[in-house]
Amino acid sequence: MSNENVHLLFHPKSVAVIGASTTRLKGGYRILENLLTNGFPPEKIYPINPKGGNALGLSFFTSLTDITDPIDVAILFVPNKVIPGVLEQCIKTGIRGAIIQAAGFEEIGTRGFELRDQIREITDNFRKIRIVGPNCTGLTTIETNSSGFFSPFIKQYGYSRGKIGVISQSGMLNGGYLIYLCTKFPSVGFRYIASIGNKMDLTENDFLEYYLSDPTVGIVVCYLENFANARKFIDLCNYARTIGKSVYLLKGGISSLGMRAIKSHTGAIAENSNLIQGLINQSHISTASTFYEMFQYARTKSMVLKAKDFLPEEGKLALVTVSGGSGSVVADLVEKHSLKLPNLQESTYTQLANIYPEWMTPNRFALLDIWPAIEKAKGDSNDVHRKVIDIVLQDENVEGLMTTVFYVNEFPFDLDILYELHKKHRKPIFTWIFGDNNQIFPIIRQLRENNIPTFENLEEMVKNFKILCSSKSSKQKKHI
Amino acid sequence: MSNENVHLLFHPKSVAVIGASTTRLKGGYRILENLLTNGFPPEKIYPINPKGGNALGLSFFTSLTDITDPIDVAILFVPNKVIPGVLEQCIKTGIRGAIIQAAGFEEIGTRGFELRDQIREITDNFRKIRIVGPNCTGLTTIETNSSGFFSPFIKQYGYSRGKIGVISQSGMLNGGYLIYLCTKFPSVGFRYIASIGNKMDLTENDFLEYYLSDPTVGIVVCYLENFANARKFIDLCNYARTIGKSVYLLKGGISSLGMRAIKSHTGAIAENSNLIQGLINQSHISTASTFYEMFQYARTKSMVLKAKDFLPEEGKLALVTVSGGSGSVVADLVEKHSLKLPNLQESTYTQLANIYPEWMTPNRFALLDIWPAIEKAKGDSNDVHRKVIDIVLQDENVEGLMTTVFYVNEFPFDLDILYELHKKHRKPIFTWIFGDNNQIFPIIRQLRENNIPTFENLEEMVKNFKILCSSKSSKQKKHI
Repeated sequence: MSNENVHLLFHPKSVAVIGASTTRLKGGYRILENLLTNGFPPEKIYPINPKGGNALGLSFFTSLTDITDPIDVAILFVPNKVIPGVLEQCIKTGIRGAIIQAAGFEEIGTRGFELRDQIREITDNFRKIRIVGPNCTGLTTIETNSSGFFSPFIKQYGYSRGKIGVISQSGMLNGGYLIYLCTKFPSVGFRYIASIGNKMDLTENDFLEYYLSDPTVGIVVCYLENFANARKFIDLCNYARTIGKSVYLLKGGISSLGMRAIKSHTGAIAENSNLIQGLINQSHISTASTFYEMFQYARTKSMVLKAKDFLPEEGKLALVTVSGGSGSVVADLVEKHSLKLPNLQESTYTQLANIYPEWMTPNRFALLDIWPAIEKAKGDSNDVHRKVIDIVLQDENVEGLMTTVFYVNEFPFDLDILYELHKKHRKPIFTWIFGDNNQIFPIIRQLRENNIPTFENLEEMVKNFKILCSSKSSKQKKHI
Repeated sequence: MSNENVHLLFHPKSVAVIGASTTRLKGGYRILENLLTNGFPPEKIYPINPKGGNALGLSFFTSLTDITDPIDVAILFVPNKVIPGVLEQCIKTGIRGAIIQAAGFEEIGTRGFELRDQIREITDNFRKIRIVGPNCTGLTTIETNSSGFFSPFIKQYGYSRGKIGVISQSGMLNGGYLIYLCTKFPSVGFRYIASIGNKMDLTENDFLEYYLSDPTVGIVVCYLENFANARKFIDLCNYARTIGKSVYLLKGGISSLGMRAIKSHTGAIAENSNLIQGLINQSHISTASTFYEMFQYARTKSMVLKAKDFLPEEGKLALVTVSGGSGSVVADLVEKHSLKLPNLQESTYTQLANIYPEWMTPNRFALLDIWPAIEKAKGDSNDVHRKVIDIVLQDENVEGLMTTVFYVNEFPFDLDILYELHKKHRKPIFTWIFGDNNQIFPIIRQLRENNIPTFENLEEMVKNFKILCSSKSSKQKKHI
């Protein structure tokens, strides 16, 4: 039943903003501004403030009870103490969902627990109204490019709709960090962001279930400080895999120090580290150790999905490089992360040998330092790249490519080589890019727009390849 | 004795370029171009090509034997087969150092070994002439900003002189990747770069010894595929620590796959992984798993040295953050990397408690989510940052600060707070920055120019703090 409630919360037709403010930059003002900026119909926004007032062309109501129109969802931007009373009013008015921003509940101890118990009673254990939060930054729905925003703290910095759904116990992921992600990876689109805070009522499982049921979501990113119901989470993650959806998890509070931290943040109760690890293993999901890593995974996966590449099953990749040193380092990283540089098929080797000089034959395995071949081709690096990559990608043992791109305007690397061969072979192509940093900036953008992920750190490149495989290979294990 | 030879190679007064070319973009032309562009006196450059010719205002000699002036160093840009003959000529002319670019030695097997043995004989086991390479991209000396470049493959993309000395078995670090580093971190300066290739004669130990003896080098970065003399390397690294110099190592070929890779790259012979690890432990140096990580360490350390910060000894840091979720993640990472968020002194706690609201008191340990304090200060985030950071940095238990910087023009974070408190307390300040990616670009630059390292990935931030401590704490262990 929670799917229906979550759906209503993400797609309300009318919203009450309780604690609306007439003062610019204040939260209660910005929520109104966000709703308007992002195309929510003004006549369906009901600002409430006991003092009344006007802002952004909206007249404030002094009380919820003054409103006779039906309201789907209430956003509560009021202090914790008054929340129980406000919820009572919401229930009377027939509001079915409330987003509570205020902190000061489980994370502050006794007084917070009392407030929580009071709310449970008033809401008949959340049967009368569903709650997101408290201690959260609300929900965001992205309907089309640049519309549909529904988040309390930020307005429009530019974002695009995509397949990523976020569930987070850090409000930042629906605030400042979301701005960062949208401006850093403008081509990566989001669909929903749920800041769930202390998750007093609706939990990660409710949102995960909704995302899995919604065909517009393909990738789910979770930041969690504790598990509401571990068994359910495992089941949902395993179900996600069977329908080809990826879940990436960052778990805060996995160490004793981290557990002290989560207690003061979301009031989450410490969980045993071994249990957490066991749970993650049973979920067969990929975990990240930072926000950056988690969203990089989501970005990479979303690019590979957009390109409609064949997903690697066994983690067998080829490296084509102009730098032997990078080759050695990648080889170490490939082994560290349980991937493979497979042996090449005989026909592949024969074709490559023609391109290499006699004095330096290619490796028999998929690590190709092409510098000797470039010397043989009298420096025609682009021609060698085109030939070698084409030959390697048609090898059946090779499921994807990593390549080093050295870019300076003086020796321009021909990006079309990668675009053409990517389209031809439909295997993921990753690039590690270096050169003049000012010049590579637009190159990175171009590559990304063509669904070729770029990396500046070789280990990130290898780990991102790894996450493409994990779901498939786990699936295979299940069949055995 | 090798110090003298290495010094000559880094600071020659005259150079012969054997294999000089009149064709633009060819290596034998670019070496001349680099020397000239970077201020080497034209009259001290002796281009040699049997066909003669002219380029860049330089007349080519047809043979080394035509030159009567004394020549310090020869750069050999000729095929491997002719090297023995050329070296014989060099010895006759009294040249004391040769840089050999050509590949095709140990890494290609039998024929390469024969060439090596021939060279050993001709040079009387390198007594008659010292050799850098083969299979390398030569040496670079940076005398002042934008002069003194002496590398065969790149010219001037802009670089500045600093305290970093590089030793590398990957030519890229004296080529394309150096361009990347200099343009990505323009404020980070290099002093020397040595591409040592197969290190037939001069090895990492010769260059490391020279860097340790040279007061202009403070930080040494090594990419190695094997160890020429492990005992010597350990001794030098331990000596480095006693004189306050840092060594950062990236070792290629630590896995069985990596060992196959290095064999075809520099002909390095596989070393036992356990031995490598033992050696690294005995060296007490920090290791990296990618080029990016290694140079990030060097960058961070060079900024902390420039700022003349007190170096942390026990790894006790404080985190001041506007994001509780980041706090939880950092706490986990701090424990993972054996650092500490220490308990605060009583006086520190009392001062902080005044800034926090009654309903949400600060932690007793150095993890400070300042959001509640900002709410109490009616949103004056800058004021809260200034007060909290000042109080925390004066705590004797705290050796450095990590802080999250959220930056959008609408709510500008006052960077002066960090600059002032950094100067006042002289403890390292690291920042994790997020916000509008287009707006944070200049902010990152500003912070870096003020010796405050920035990070986009929380784990990188924590690991970079870790490397500041390792040298000191190892030193302490020694005293016990």
